[in-house]
Amino acid sequence: MSQTVQTEVTVAGMTCGHCVAAVTEELTALPGVVDVAVDLHAGEDSPVTITSAAPLERAAVESAVTEAGYTLR
Amino acid sequence: MSQTVQTEVTVAGMTCGHCVAAVTEELTALPGVVDVAVDLHAGEDSPVTITSAAPLERAAVESAVTEAGYTLR
Repeated sequence: MSQTVQTEVTVAGMTCGHCVAAVTEELTALPGVVDVAVDLHAGEDSPVTITSAAPLERAAVESAVTEAGYTLR
Repeated sequence: MSQTVQTEVTVAGMTCGHCVAAVTEELTALPGVVDVAVDLHAGEDSPVTITSAAPLERAAVESAVTEAGYTLR
């Protein structure tokens, strides 16, 4: 039996694959994160699913998104 | 930001849709469970993904699977 945590967030401001790569890189660097899936809605709010070994703090996710240059809704 | 826990387990002995329904019903009845997805491999070990609001104890999952008449690997 294995358990992972799925965190669903909304990120504003991404417009292309480079944005997706930047957000993915920052989120993947968070401790315990094993997968990041971005459903790019160019120029609109994009849903992002983060899979991790343990629950994530909103502050940590927000920091990572801000670091990449985007806004966590 | 919303978080859910995904628990992956393997259940032995299911052979048809009735087995799937029985396992799904028992697992869905566990506190906090919001979704159960069974990938039926008839007569073999079948992967089951349980989505819940909080982590699940193995003992609770095992009880539910046993109650339905199958075996948790």
